[in-house]
This record gives sequence, structure tokens and C-alpha cells, in this order.
Amino acid sequence: MTINAVKREIPDYIEGYGKVRHYQGAFARKPEGAIAGAKLRCFNNDVTDKRVSSIKEAIKASGLKSGMTVSFHHHLRNGDYVVNMVLDACAEMGIKELTLFPTALFGVHKKVIDHIKSGVVTKIMGSVNGPIGQLVSEGGMQVPVVLRSHGGRPRAVMAGDVHIDVAFIAAPTADKYGNICGTLGKSACGSLGYAFTDADYADKVVAVTDNLVDFPASPVSIPQTKADIVVEVPSIGDPAGIVSGTTKVTRDPLRLLISRYASQLIEASPYFKDGISFQTGAGGIPLAVTAFMKEAMLKKGIKGGFGLGGITGYFVELLKEGLVGKLMDVQSFDLDAVRSIGENPNHIEISADWYANPWNCGAAVNMLDVVILGATEVDTDFNANVNTEADGALLHGTGGHQDTAAGAKLTIIAQPLLRGRIPCVTDSVYNVTTPGEVIDAIVTEYGVTINPRRKDLLDAVSGVKDLPLVPMEELAAHAKKMSGPTDPVRTTDRIIGVVEWRDGTVIDVVRQLKK
Amino acid sequence: MTINAVKREIPDYIEGYGKVRHYQGAFARKPEGAIAGAKLRCFNNDVTDKRVSSIKEAIKASGLKSGMTVSFHHHLRNGDYVVNMVLDACAEMGIKELTLFPTALFGVHKKVIDHIKSGVVTKIMGSVNGPIGQLVSEGGMQVPVVLRSHGGRPRAVMAGDVHIDVAFIAAPTADKYGNICGTLGKSACGSLGYAFTDADYADKVVAVTDNLVDFPASPVSIPQTKADIVVEVPSIGDPAGIVSGTTKVTRDPLRLLISRYASQLIEASPYFKDGISFQTGAGGIPLAVTAFMKEAMLKKGIKGGFGLGGITGYFVELLKEGLVGKLMDVQSFDLDAVRSIGENPNHIEISADWYANPWNCGAAVNMLDVVILGATEVDTDFNANVNTEADGALLHGTGGHQDTAAGAKLTIIAQPLLRGRIPCVTDSVYNVTTPGEVIDAIVTEYGVTINPRRKDLLDAVSGVKDLPLVPMEELAAHAKKMSGPTDPVRTTDRIIGVVEWRDGTVIDVVRQLKK
Repeated sequence: MTINAVKREIPDYIEGYGKVRHYQGAFARKPEGAIAGAKLRCFNNDVTDKRVSSIKEAIKASGLKSGMTVSFHHHLRNGDYVVNMVLDACAEMGIKELTLFPTALFGVHKKVIDHIKSGVVTKIMGSVNGPIGQLVSEGGMQVPVVLRSHGGRPRAVMAGDVHIDVAFIAAPTADKYGNICGTLGKSACGSLGYAFTDADYADKVVAVTDNLVDFPASPVSIPQTKADIVVEVPSIGDPAGIVSGTTKVTRDPLRLLISRYASQLIEASPYFKDGISFQTGAGGIPLAVTAFMKEAMLKKGIKGGFGLGGITGYFVELLKEGLVGKLMDVQSFDLDAVRSIGENPNHIEISADWYANPWNCGAAVNMLDVVILGATEVDTDFNANVNTEADGALLHGTGGHQDTAAGAKLTIIAQPLLRGRIPCVTDSVYNVTTPGEVIDAIVTEYGVTINPRRKDLLDAVSGVKDLPLVPMEELAAHAKKMSGPTDPVRTTDRIIGVVEWRDGTVIDVVRQLKK
Repeated sequence: MTINAVKREIPDYIEGYGKVRHYQGAFARKPEGAIAGAKLRCFNNDVTDKRVSSIKEAIKASGLKSGMTVSFHHHLRNGDYVVNMVLDACAEMGIKELTLFPTALFGVHKKVIDHIKSGVVTKIMGSVNGPIGQLVSEGGMQVPVVLRSHGGRPRAVMAGDVHIDVAFIAAPTADKYGNICGTLGKSACGSLGYAFTDADYADKVVAVTDNLVDFPASPVSIPQTKADIVVEVPSIGDPAGIVSGTTKVTRDPLRLLISRYASQLIEASPYFKDGISFQTGAGGIPLAVTAFMKEAMLKKGIKGGFGLGGITGYFVELLKEGLVGKLMDVQSFDLDAVRSIGENPNHIEISADWYANPWNCGAAVNMLDVVILGATEVDTDFNANVNTEADGALLHGTGGHQDTAAGAKLTIIAQPLLRGRIPCVTDSVYNVTTPGEVIDAIVTEYGVTINPRRKDLLDAVSGVKDLPLVPMEELAAHAKKMSGPTDPVRTTDRIIGVVEWRDGTVIDVVRQLKK
């Protein structure tokens, strides 16, 4: 056991995970050695068509065998058919003991539970949202799930921590030679950012498409040089689940108040000037913050630099209006974003590596001024938990939380002080996803709580009209008072989840729930 | 000594090159192992500006030391300032014994000769066009130059045959964080295709730009994740040397006749149908072939699939007119091409790896129907030489010759039977660049000579009106008669050039000229 830099006691070895590198600080670990390459392949002109006739044929051609690691990307979100399609076929073909390495799993993938129970899937490295997370939390898997951030995942692959045997890429458009495009086709999802690493570093890459076009497809997100096999299927996903119609700004007065405080904080910060860059995501509060910021930008004649991350129609509007110069898009959330990335050269498709990996020549998050994030809970050390719920169930992925927090000059957690009767500010979070070291402010309906490490920021916002500053102690006391006594999370000793910091060290572990 | 598959006697070990893998056939060698990765790097938000103040500072920051390998790309062609700028600075800094790994060198780089003489540059792997080639041919370097094709070069890097310590990338546009774009700026050159491999696999990457723009630059050819250092200079090149004004179709009646024969051959081939793809390059004959093909396509109502390779305004015209659907561009030859690739989403920037590497999941050349090439000489085995002149001097790079010949379904060498009094068809070429195995037809002013391996093609074109078919024996005899007796190449035993086949085997060697 070792106590790490966020005061968590972590075993030095975790069964089913391996030797633990302990978290030593947000920027402590530096890489050694070289990027781990995929297998060299050789294609000559005897193959001018990489298509096979079915998912099973693709699996056969890929050489996928029991015990291997398969990867998927989640741009089709809750509309994705590909994960189920592939795992069902594996099950029928008698392939077992797979390690699943998705960028995220959704409700639509609850069938994975059957494959876990039957031994087709025995390990998961990736976000386990919803029902699969519940299963895992209750001890339904033999080895711990490994959670990595959007940047930590490509880092792990490039550093050789994870080797992808076969990557299955849901391709909204592809040609017979494997050029893949995300912006066209009936299942268009826009950016294919998360899939780039898989295409670059997997030993075999299978493009699964429902929109085969003449060679060469264009625009190209992932080129033919990366794809070994192409398979056409009737449908890779349900458009209704792939993109949301329109993302909406919150109308809840309490959340609007929080959003206004967050916006005021940004406006008072030294970053609110021409060229300001920000990531706000798709939640109700962040969108409202963006709306307030837009007002302020118009009022003060400020133009933004770039918007980053998962991109919504709201950001597209800012781009069109010239209020941000560029969009850097790793995931297009709605139809407006999908359309824009296909048409507007200032709307740039970026990979997860480009977005967030700490181990390359510089991710986009490093250039970020402001990010608005949420959390299921934060604590008096400003540590944030986004992975587990109040009962300790591991229901959420890390996403870009760690990466943007570590990269942005101003990291704001904006959320109500309580959800139902559960306090969002506690003495100590059950699980640390992101260390307080990289979180600058908590914004709740009670005002703004600044991390004492950021004295500069505290000075900047002191005395701003109508912006209450609340010390952390007061905030925590308030939360405690409001919620009344809460039950501690009740777990067994068994570790069912390992939460990696983006540099590959273990920042925390999650344990099996007590029945 | 071993006699290889094109009957060349090659030593098993070459001083300054190493152990020889002998050429065994165009498609014989298969890769083993994994792609060799660059050093892992780590950039956090303490660096949001990668600029240094001068080329020397960039060299210092890159860690470049005597004995290392530096790479350059040649999209600025005969207008490039970057190679000289970097080598001059290295010389002043006392850095010696560098291995130069350019994609090609031009007349503008003749200053490299001084750096060779002073020991700054002691080895060259890459094309040595013109004066440097002359120097090398006369024994001016201690170790042999290694020639690789456009596809063989990225193959060599990915397979670990060549490790790039520092890559210098001439960047027509860049931002302070290293996003690089080729289509904008006063030194715009269009595609940056050859530079991609260097950016991907060098341990350090330096972007040298004369057009710094706000972060993030877009469109992005090479992303910030690859660039360690950015340096701004007054000018990276002379626009007059970077792009030619307009490439011109030949007006010489003899060459027009050859072009017409080549076009007739294509029209009579099974490939002349909807979707036909072709590469014709920028020479006078190939452009004329394209012009004749265009006529034929219009007459027969045929639409082409894609045009490949170095792209000219002529191809851009075909794209605009809908006679080809897409352009795949590794190098933009003229202003029209530069403009088009910046604007038209159907004009696709491709890397050299994508263009031509035999060791990935399939290069563009594999999808090619027809390629028109030249050669300094071909022989009765249909072997082609593009590297040496009649006197044996090593004056030309391999370019995409090997790759397109190996990839295309119909590879045509089109050229006059004699240049001056020098025959272009001989009993045995002095140097084999591309084996007869992958060359299908020689087209001269005497008609079309089909490789007997291609009986299908011979059948297809037999009886075509006004298209004389000339057996190889007749063609060679004719050439001999026309030229009269020729002097054999006079060389010493010393090997000054190693010509690799695209798969990394040695297909031939070039020896030092006798004085």
C-alpha cells in the first residue's frame, strides 16, 4: 500500500490490473522510450477491394481470437449498433475472454452484460456508463475496469500500456479501400476524433460502414493506409441516438443563477479578452454559461479564439457569428455540428490525441483558457469525482474532465450544491477523478469558491458586483447543513475499478458495493 | 556477391550502407515486426508557445548533434531556402557528420556541396539531383548515397531502417503551437505530403515558417501534436522556384506522336472505362497524353475516377470539368494546383505513405489504372533506369517511378527512342531503377512495344487502327542502328550509390565514374 499525492491508500499491485504506478501530482510523470507501433502490413495491387461479406467474415479475416483486445469508438453514442454487432458475432463464433477497449459504452450496449456473463468479455478498459457500470459495481466482473480520460487513452496506447489487436471503426462513410469519413451518410456523426488512435495503433483495423461510396471517399478522416478490412452492413446506428436534435440551454432558475455566476467569474478573470478560448460541453449549465458569455462578449466587443471539445450547434452559431474564430471538434454532438464540420474549414476535426493527450507535442487542452465542468461531488481539497454516484456505483466515464482541467488556465466546476438531498460538496470525495491541484473554482448557487492556490484569481474577482465569494469551509458547512447526515458509501475491499490519471498513474480505486 | 532477380551482381555488404538485402522480385519481400515509433514527448500547459527566436536556437533546442540524421521535404522545390538555412547554421555551430535525409535536393541546394566538403554532411539518403549528384558520381562522398522511391522512403522510416533525429519542416503557414498548413501564405506550396512521415516519426520536429498566424491555424496538414519547435524566419523560399506558372503540353511533333500512341494504347486497353484513374505527372509528353485522353473521354462519354501524384493545373481543369472525380495530391506543381487543394474538398492532400508506401494497409498507387512515366533508358528486359544519365552519372531521384509502376494496372514508359544521339532502348540498362516485371509498355515514335508478360494487353491492342505494334527486338535494333556504336559507361569498382527497390532490398548499385 502506498498513499498517493491525493492522500489515497492504493495497493502497489492490483489483481487483474498489474503493478500500480502511484499518482504523484498532475504533471509529475514524464514519458520514457518510444511510441509503440502497430504491426507493419503489406498491401500490393493484388488487393484493390478490402471488402468482406459480413461481420463474421471481417472478424475471421482480422485474426481476432479469444484473449485479444478489441477497440471501439463512441461517436455513434446511444445510437451505436457496431459494438453489439461485433460482440454478438464473436459470441456465435465461440470467441471468448475478450478485453473490451471502447472509448465509452452507453445504455444501448447493455447487451454487453450478457457477453460478460457468458465469458465473451472478461475485461473492460473504458467508460462503463449506466447498466454495465452497475453490474461492475456489484462485482459482476472478475477483473477491475480501467478508467482513462480522453487524453489518457491515446497516451496508454502510444506508450504501449494497451495494445489493440483489432479496432472496429464505425464508419458513416467509407470506400472499398478503407478511406473513412464521418460527416457524410445516413449515420453521419461528424468528427471521428476518438477513433484516430485506434486506426493508428491497432494491429488490424476493420471499417464497418452503411454508406459505401466510390473510391476515393472524401473528405477523409481516416485514410486507407490504416484500414485492413471493410465490411458493409445495413446500418451502423440509429440516427436518433447518434445525434441529438438541438442541445438546450437550461431554463431552471437555480441553474441559470449558477451559470450567471460562472460567467461573471470568467468575465472578471484575466482571460476574458480577445482570443479567449473555451470548452463548455453540452450540459444545460455550460450552455447557459456560454449564452451569458456571448452577451458579455458582444457588450465588450471581445472575439474568442477557439471553442474546443464536444461541439454543439451553440458553438457553431458562435463560429458563424465570428465570436469564436475556430472550432476544434473531437465529437460533434448535434446535427448542426455535424453539418458544420463537413462544410466549414474553420471547424476542425481533431483526434483524441490532439485534443487531450499529455504525451505528445502538445494537446489542444493546453491552449485552453477556460473550461466549465461538472462533477458528482467535490471536496474541501477541491478534488472532483465524476466516476461514481453518491452510493459509490461506478456509472460514469472520465471523459475529458482530467485533461481539460489540467490544461485550462481557468477550470470551473459549476453545479448546484445539492442534487436532490445529496450534497455535491463533501469533506472528502469517495473517488478522486481529478485532483484539486488543477481545479480553480467551484461555482454553486451560493456563489463562487476559489481554490486558495489561485490567489491571483481571488484578487481578480474580489469586489465584483453581485458575485458572492464563498470560502470552501463555508460552502462545505452549508452543504452539510442542507443535506443533513448522509450515509457513507458501503463497500467491500474488492477493487472493481481503477481510475487512472491521464499520465497512466493510478489516482484512485473504486470498490465493490456491499449488498 | 549475389546475383539478384534483375541479374545484377551485388555485394552482400556495402561499406557505408551495411548488409544488403537482395532484390528478389517486385512483390517478394514482406514486412515483419512493428512500426518504429518516435520518442514519446510530454507537453503540458506550461508551454503554450513553441517559438524560438532563430534557426540556431531551434537547432539548439532540438538537441541536434554531430552524427545525427536530419530530414527535409522538397515541396518548395527549387525555391527552397530551408535546407541551406539549417545546414549553414549547423556549420557555424560546429555540427558535423550529419546524415542528410531529404525527400529530394535541387539545384538551389548546390551549397550542400560546400557542407559535404567541409564535413558537415557526410552521408545523404535521398535524391541527389544535378550538381550534388555529379559530385557524388565523381567520388566526392565517403559513403554511398541511398536512393529510395517516394513510397520506399516512408517504408524505410516506419520499418526502422532510417531513424530521423530532427525533421525540419518548411511550413508555408504555422501557428505558435506548431499547426502547419501548406496552402496559405506567401510561400504556399499546396500539399505537404512528403513531410508527413518526417513529422510522424522524427524524434524532434521543427516547423520553419514565414507566415505565422493565430492559433489554431487551419486547415491543418500537420497538427501541433507532432511539432516540438516553431521558428519564424523572413522567408522560407522563393515563390518563383516553389511553383511553376503553368505547366505546358509539348508542341514538338515527335513528342505529340508519342503522346498520341500512348493515348491510343490506353483507349484500347481494358482500363479505358468509367472510373479510370491515372497519374501523368508534369512532363510535356504525359500532359499531352492527358490532353489526348481528355478528347477521347469526352468523345466516348467516359468519366475518370481520380488523378494521382504530383498535381498540375491541367488535372485541376479535369476535376473542375468533372472528367475526374477526385485528385489525390502528394505535391502540387503549380499555382492552380495550390489554389485548388486549398479550396476544393475533392482535391485531397495525401502523404507519401498514402501515395506509395508498400508497407501499410494500401497505398493509392495500388488503385491506379494507368501511369505514364519516363526513363533515361529501358532495356530489352523492360527494365527502366531513371537515376543515371548515359555517362553513368547519378543525377536523378527515383521519385514515384517504382511505386506507380508496381501499383498501376498499366504502366507505360513514353519517350523518344533517342535523346540527341543517345539511344533510350539498350540491351541492358546501366542501372535498374524499376524492374521490367512491372513495366507493361514502351511507347516511342515507332509505336507501342508491349511486354510479352502482358499477352492480355497485346491481344487488346492488336489491330487498333494507326497504332503500330513494335516487338522489343525490333525496337532495340532500330535504336542501335539510329545511334550507331555507343561508349559503355566507364566506372571504377567503388560504389557511390545504392538504389533500393521500394521494399528496402537493393535492386542495383551505381559506381564512381572513371576520370
